[in-house]
Amino acid sequence: MRATYAVGVDVGGTHIGAGLMERKGRVVKQTHVLTPRNGPFAVLDAIIALVSETIADTHPPEVAGVGIGLPALIDFRKQSVEFCTNLPLAGVDVRSLVMSGVNQNVTLDNDGNCAGIGEFRFGAAKGVRDFVMITLGTGVGGALLFDGQLYRGSRGFAGEIGHVVVRLDGPPCPCGGLGHIESFLGSPAIAARGREAARAVGGEALRTRACGNPDNVTAEHVVQAALAGDITARDILLEAGDILGEALVGIVNLLNPQLIVVGGGIGESADMLVARAAEVIAEEALAGRRDVKVVQALLSNDAGILGAAALAFDEYDRRGGPPGEHDF
Amino acid sequence: MRATYAVGVDVGGTHIGAGLMERKGRVVKQTHVLTPRNGPFAVLDAIIALVSETIADTHPPEVAGVGIGLPALIDFRKQSVEFCTNLPLAGVDVRSLVMSGVNQNVTLDNDGNCAGIGEFRFGAAKGVRDFVMITLGTGVGGALLFDGQLYRGSRGFAGEIGHVVVRLDGPPCPCGGLGHIESFLGSPAIAARGREAARAVGGEALRTRACGNPDNVTAEHVVQAALAGDITARDILLEAGDILGEALVGIVNLLNPQLIVVGGGIGESADMLVARAAEVIAEEALAGRRDVKVVQALLSNDAGILGAAALAFDEYDRRGGPPGEHDF
Repeated sequence: MRATYAVGVDVGGTHIGAGLMERKGRVVKQTHVLTPRNGPFAVLDAIIALVSETIADTHPPEVAGVGIGLPALIDFRKQSVEFCTNLPLAGVDVRSLVMSGVNQNVTLDNDGNCAGIGEFRFGAAKGVRDFVMITLGTGVGGALLFDGQLYRGSRGFAGEIGHVVVRLDGPPCPCGGLGHIESFLGSPAIAARGREAARAVGGEALRTRACGNPDNVTAEHVVQAALAGDITARDILLEAGDILGEALVGIVNLLNPQLIVVGGGIGESADMLVARAAEVIAEEALAGRRDVKVVQALLSNDAGILGAAALAFDEYDRRGGPPGEHDF
Repeated sequence: MRATYAVGVDVGGTHIGAGLMERKGRVVKQTHVLTPRNGPFAVLDAIIALVSETIADTHPPEVAGVGIGLPALIDFRKQSVEFCTNLPLAGVDVRSLVMSGVNQNVTLDNDGNCAGIGEFRFGAAKGVRDFVMITLGTGVGGALLFDGQLYRGSRGFAGEIGHVVVRLDGPPCPCGGLGHIESFLGSPAIAARGREAARAVGGEALRTRACGNPDNVTAEHVVQAALAGDITARDILLEAGDILGEALVGIVNLLNPQLIVVGGGIGESADMLVARAAEVIAEEALAGRRDVKVVQALLSNDAGILGAAALAFDEYDRRGGPPGEHDF
């Protein structure tokens, strides 16, 4: 019997989401919980409970397995969690522990990779063989798809597009580096520009959204104000679009992708930022590469769940069906 | 009968070199000419004459074919020359014309790609599946090897590592962009730093090498003076090493390679520049990627010929032997 469903789990710093997905990407059941903050086993228990709930109405052979996207560096071949900044999972054998908890095969990957696979299979990059995904959120992440395959690099850590240098000796990045893409385009950087603007002439709209207090302006306020037509907020996003464009010119020159997908909270909402970046690329990329398309991601928060579930189907297909006893 | 030899041709702006290579990388015959400056057909004739001379003592079935590395953007699938800045070959059907001139199958690729394949098969990156090559010469170029395969991108133009932005609004790059790696690390940029230093206190050694005239200082003078122990020249290369290191931190974070090979005239001679770049990467790359090795290329100018010949063997193997009549 060929499996009908796979489970995709997207583990984030604040929420854990899970979905039961059919092979073609239809999600038939979806649920989520707040991410426990009290240690690794609480997180594992939450994942196991979510997966169990998700597959409660299925028969085991109907389920291909479970894919889990973690905000961590995963050595994909070893299926080990090597580094995990926001959750205490580094060194924890997440795969084995969840496998014995849910009696399903489990595949781990980085959350950015899962989102990239999601957009590739079911979203904005469907049918495209060479593309780069960049996600603009609190952090700036991404994924690389080369020749129709996710590219993971030598240890599985490729795709950290947020930590490409764009201004030597530029502002500090949370990773400790200087002048990385994330130090200009992460939401803390956009929010800082918003707070600055809110204190100056022309910052009324931003101040109003932050209930009169410039110190409370967030990146979301900037995006909302810009979408509502505020010129000051709009200028902040256009300037960010210039920087994103310049950074992507380098990526386009290096990788010659067919498509760039911009995702994440800011990427999916700030149309003018993405449009401006596309203009810069069309003007400045080297000959032969300027036809690259730049689009916004389509799947929003579901990309991670869909991609993780697709990974589980891939692993099931690679193994040629349901796992034998020895796999557990 | 299985072919014993392949011909590799490396077409440069000043020289065209050709070699007859055995499958394992031994070059049994090598020759070169100055690149003709009088139009596309002169260049084609020179290539045809060189190849003919190279295979003069072989029997046709002994030769797998001819690989040609061009300083041009090649659409590898179409085998067409799309852009060629220094030679008038854009739009010229180089493959067909050389094929009918030498009666051998011909495969074209970008010269940086050929050098990358050469180092991968026979040089500094032998046995490494994921590596980045960067060549520091007049231009800064490179090649990407992912999962043991040259990565060409969607149209075949990937690998232009010299045109990755490292300083937004930085100095102009010959390509028209601003603040690209090449605008800091191409030999014109190193020479400019050398001329500046030669005019100032401490510039004696550089002035001497340029026969007393600071305006004549070249990048080669800077490298030679540094290797001879001149502190001013050394500082220029260490500063260049810092910039190379920062740029490569971004590439390492993005691509997580196992190895970086630094080639080109400057890369292969300026040890301290490469060593400094390696230090910067070891300090600043993201967790899990700092074990990347940074080494100098081993094959120097032969890399292009060896890589082009390896391409010809690959194409021969892919076709399963000698071409049929219909291929010409």
